[in-house]
Amino acid sequence: MIRSGIIKDLTGLLNLLKTSPNSFDKVLHKVNILSVGDGKCRAKLKLDEDHLNPFGAMHGGFSATLLDCVSAYALSTKIPGPHASVEIHLSYFKSARKGDDVLIEASVTKTGKKLAFMEVEIKNGETGDLLAKGTHTAFIL
Amino acid sequence: MIRSGIIKDLTGLLNLLKTSPNSFDKVLHKVNILSVGDGKCRAKLKLDEDHLNPFGAMHGGFSATLLDCVSAYALSTKIPGPHASVEIHLSYFKSARKGDDVLIEASVTKTGKKLAFMEVEIKNGETGDLLAKGTHTAFIL
Amino acid sequence: MIRSGIIKDLTGLLNLLKTSPNSFDKVLHKVNILSVGDGKCRAKLKLDEDHLNPFGAMHGGFSATLLDCVSAYALSTKIPGPHASVEIHLSYFKSARKGDDVLIEASVTKTGKKLAFMEVEIKNGETGDLLAKGTHTAFIL
Amino acid sequence: MIRSGIIKDLTGLLNLLKTSPNSFDKVLHKVNILSVGDGKCRAKLKLDEDHLNPFGAMHGGFSATLLDCVSAYALSTKIPGPHASVEIHLSYFKSARKGDDVLIEASVTKTGKKLAFMEVEIKNGETGDLLAKGTHTAFIL
Repeated sequence: MIRSGIIKDLTGLLNLLKTSPNSFDKVLHKVNILSVGDGKCRAKLKLDEDHLNPFGAMHGGFSATLLDCVSAYALSTKIPGPHASVEIHLSYFKSARKGDDVLIEASVTKTGKKLAFMEVEIKNGETGDLLAKGTHTAFIL
Repeated sequence: MIRSGIIKDLTGLLNLLKTSPNSFDKVLHKVNILSVGDGKCRAKLKLDEDHLNPFGAMHGGFSATLLDCVSAYALSTKIPGPHASVEIHLSYFKSARKGDDVLIEASVTKTGKKLAFMEVEIKNGETGDLLAKGTHTAFIL
Repeated sequence: MIRSGIIKDLTGLLNLLKTSPNSFDKVLHKVNILSVGDGKCRAKLKLDEDHLNPFGAMHGGFSATLLDCVSAYALSTKIPGPHASVEIHLSYFKSARKGDDVLIEASVTKTGKKLAFMEVEIKNGETGDLLAKGTHTAFIL
Repeated sequence: MIRSGIIKDLTGLLNLLKTSPNSFDKVLHKVNILSVGDGKCRAKLKLDEDHLNPFGAMHGGFSATLLDCVSAYALSTKIPGPHASVEIHLSYFKSARKGDDVLIEASVTKTGKKLAFMEVEIKNGETGDLLAKGTHTAFIL
């Protein structure tokens, strides 16, 4: 969960991910970053089979990975150094299935000298329904 | 996050995962289930590059996926029907790196008629150090 | 944590609290309800000595009590029956001291047949700074 | 939520609480500390009317206050300086009523240089049933 703060814009983010092609982040390879900057990051994807659980619904671990990563991208635009996750908390409201458009909106709620707090909404991109919502707390190294 | 409760033992679990080879659960394909039954599930893995973040540490999203899945396996031995995640909460204590042995121990804390509560410890399998610890709350469908 | 859903408006809420003058809710007796209805509740108070910890800062347990109660008032305007708390999660951002104005804003994020999700922001009423933010998940009985 | 780490034993704790008789901690005046030391604190109380919600069940805000305070007492035996709460998370399993014996067991899960993690179990003292369980994360000042 240690991350660097070198992401200044979309190019920086894509360069970072390219340097470690076999990391766990590759599970996000179908995710499109819509915007990143000023403590915010928006992303979207069309749900495919590899985002689902064996019962055909969006996987809770995949949602948590979206929370973790997209909020870290948002934070990286705001703080200069690396950070490490302290806690994540995620509530699941509604299911989604293959073919659904999913929108992820992360923002930094508050940064202090050593701690940063982010929150993330995961929505159905067509209906606007909230699918999941959570928080991510990080320690600034 | 909807899951079935048809897992009675290790064979049932492996059969379930085999039926959906392209689901997100495939990120766990290097995880070995040590035991599953009576509301508990123990698993282990040796951390490889595809479990890490771009900075070489165990990925927070992968840890959350371990929490989500291994606790769901534990619950599936205890309740007859399917369930859906309501909330997960995870605290990160210590980092782990490529080659580290990781032990995951999930247990059901409490089940009611409609809600089930689980907790999971993720440890360094050699030193016993706690890497992360969390809870998973599910709704019994 | 079992509560009734009989609160329709401010009068209903005040009547409820009057029926049990010695309950733990009396720790909120300096809290003024600004509005309650349509899944929302806003309240404010001026911090006094009995809201603080021994070190002169707003008490974390009092903040949690505000989260629990004000969100329950918000929920009670939306569902007909009683409910019970399942989980609360609260992040603390900034301290407050005696004499500070505190604003509490609770809203229902989502209700289903058996579960309801609420969130609460606790702010400094003068500066608008976020002091704490959290979630409350309840089971509809 | 800022607290000092001057509690070395039961006497130190009681002295601290005596110095601020009108703080929010007075809601715990019927709580008996059974033991405090070595990163742990055990306490008990008999539930009275002023620990309940208007519907006669143990108040969720009071449970959260027990979590917050008893875990802070446990932490104070382990770290020299003051600390501030970062997050609390609490799951509610079972209700309790007037006259029930309640046992609170807090322990420090992990301390680092700047962060400390605690967990707390709240049990029925007679049946041993788990009433609530939660975590408290603090920043070491």
